[in-house]
Amino acid sequence: MKVSIERSALLKAMGRAQGVVERRTTIPILSNVLIEAEGAEIAFRATDLDIEVLDRTPAVVERAGATTVGAHTLHEIVRKLPDGAMVELQDDGTAGRLEVRAGRSQFSLATLPKEDFPVMASSEYSCTFTCPAPVLRRLFDKAKFAISTEETRYYLNGVYMHVAEADGGRRLRCVATDGHRLARIDAEVPPGAEAAPGVIVPRKTVGELRKLLDDDEAEITVSVSETKIRFATPEVSLTSKVIDGSFPDYTRVIPQGNTKRLEVDAAEFAQAVDRVSTVSSEKSRAVKLSLEEDRLTLSVNAPDSGAATEELAVAYADEPLDIGFNAKYLQEIASQIDRENAVFMFNSMNDPTLVREGDDESAVYVVMPMRV
Amino acid sequence: MKVSIERSALLKAMGRAQGVVERRTTIPILSNVLIEAEGAEIAFRATDLDIEVLDRTPAVVERAGATTVGAHTLHEIVRKLPDGAMVELQDDGTAGRLEVRAGRSQFSLATLPKEDFPVMASSEYSCTFTCPAPVLRRLFDKAKFAISTEETRYYLNGVYMHVAEADGGRRLRCVATDGHRLARIDAEVPPGAEAAPGVIVPRKTVGELRKLLDDDEAEITVSVSETKIRFATPEVSLTSKVIDGSFPDYTRVIPQGNTKRLEVDAAEFAQAVDRVSTVSSEKSRAVKLSLEEDRLTLSVNAPDSGAATEELAVAYADEPLDIGFNAKYLQEIASQIDRENAVFMFNSMNDPTLVREGDDESAVYVVMPMRV
Repeated sequence: MKVSIERSALLKAMGRAQGVVERRTTIPILSNVLIEAEGAEIAFRATDLDIEVLDRTPAVVERAGATTVGAHTLHEIVRKLPDGAMVELQDDGTAGRLEVRAGRSQFSLATLPKEDFPVMASSEYSCTFTCPAPVLRRLFDKAKFAISTEETRYYLNGVYMHVAEADGGRRLRCVATDGHRLARIDAEVPPGAEAAPGVIVPRKTVGELRKLLDDDEAEITVSVSETKIRFATPEVSLTSKVIDGSFPDYTRVIPQGNTKRLEVDAAEFAQAVDRVSTVSSEKSRAVKLSLEEDRLTLSVNAPDSGAATEELAVAYADEPLDIGFNAKYLQEIASQIDRENAVFMFNSMNDPTLVREGDDESAVYVVMPMRV
Repeated sequence: MKVSIERSALLKAMGRAQGVVERRTTIPILSNVLIEAEGAEIAFRATDLDIEVLDRTPAVVERAGATTVGAHTLHEIVRKLPDGAMVELQDDGTAGRLEVRAGRSQFSLATLPKEDFPVMASSEYSCTFTCPAPVLRRLFDKAKFAISTEETRYYLNGVYMHVAEADGGRRLRCVATDGHRLARIDAEVPPGAEAAPGVIVPRKTVGELRKLLDDDEAEITVSVSETKIRFATPEVSLTSKVIDGSFPDYTRVIPQGNTKRLEVDAAEFAQAVDRVSTVSSEKSRAVKLSLEEDRLTLSVNAPDSGAATEELAVAYADEPLDIGFNAKYLQEIASQIDRENAVFMFNSMNDPTLVREGDDESAVYVVMPMRV
């Protein structure tokens, strides 16, 4: 193999590859990126056996070939090369070394045979559709904070993407929950997506997917089967196993009959929660919300260190209510609100509370109260 | 006590206070800041028993008084208050609570009696002089990277500030070393400083001192005794015990007879060291410098992962030399060089090497070689 590639293109590809490669792995080949040069392009492939990212970049291929080399080391080297440098990758196929040259820098990196690299088996996808990057970005960005980190509840360690029945027709929906709070984000069903099976996209995949979604103009091709999902642009394809489990019936968790309506400036609310929670001890950052007509009082009482209260002018016309929440949960939800106002729908101090962006039903959050 | 103070002034004072207060301490009062309001100013005092910082800020004092309150909590609260807010601090002296009010936020913080706060005993200083902030900044900034972190060699855990004889007269000098590298930084002796005793300023004090030196126009009053040092501006005074030990005779470490002279662009050199060291394993990041006429080749050989070389065009006219260094040490020294060119003076591959900024003798570094 002998190829030349511009540093910034190589850096982009290696940035994606090293995101997938685990820092610590007991299987040496999994630390490596598979580099394949053929025709007028070079392909970089990295995997952790659950996720595979494949990146194709135009390059000047003098001699076709393939090898594997440590992903983090190559990424670090490329990152440190000067901007605009041309990088030459050369491997004679026998020495077990990849030569990397740029300007007056020269590196010789240990390789492992390309035959040992575990390429993910290709699958039959039951459904393929395209979706604008901003739509996917919104679906996953707004849901992911609620993903559970409890490994025992592995079926909650991801975002449940599926097509759901909603008022006014079907929706492409992403749901995540950890049992304490839940996010349910809807978008229009892209043409061809109606038959997509519901899948739980793992947390790490959600993180890597994000790197494909920065370009507002990009159209992402999504392919789904019962066991895998693939997100692809013309250059990059990210394939991931989905979590093998059943996502719980979240619809029962979303309160329907909450009638006490609070409307509050989302940024002001988040800042006030942040301030009053300062005095509480690390563990139970409980904030009490006390509602009276057009007035919200946030308060925290931490016997050791002190107490805090803050008043906000709000829109509230129902009977007075005291209800407690984990401060972190309130802040995370409030930070998802893009519009000016958040709307809270309460029932009682013991019931789950619904949070929306204004009156928009396409992004709905549920948060469980806690005793204060 | 009842005072009002602008949020930004309070934040500045509390920022300095919480830098001195240790996060974990077994003595509760040491977590607190002593707040004293009298006349038209409010004083904030924090200590870890070795360092004391005292900050005086103009404030509207309605009722004089004093109390102590958790420094980190108060700092966090003030940080989260909106910019421009007026903050009211109120304590009735009996309830054991400090009331903090700003806008519609209100906090009630647990206090401890002001009598329990350990105010550092005042000292007789044998020497007091003033020095422009940029001069002190340069002296300490360029030396501190070489401070040892080995607790057993406690007398190296700081910067040795003293007046020294040098070519061309006496100099105010800061020296730090960890046995592997050494920094010796000189400045003109400020008027009145000639008689200052040599003192070892502890690492933490060096860090807190830095916060007083940002203002280019500031004149710092330095008071020194055998046991203490004080740095003061009209608003802030930072008093610190000095390390009770003898700084070793560093002059013997600084090579006098090195004749092989390398001149190299400092930034290019640092970047090249950074690049070639990428391939080496974490622990011994040894870089080999191979010198030939007007050419420097940097190389790293890591049997497991690979090898790297880089060539630099340099000025070198002596006999060829191969010498190895710890990559981190080379980078740290190179990053101290403000001028374009670093000058290395070598003797042999086993002898300490001298590094200067161009031909300026007022900032000199020594680094020990390592076998490669």
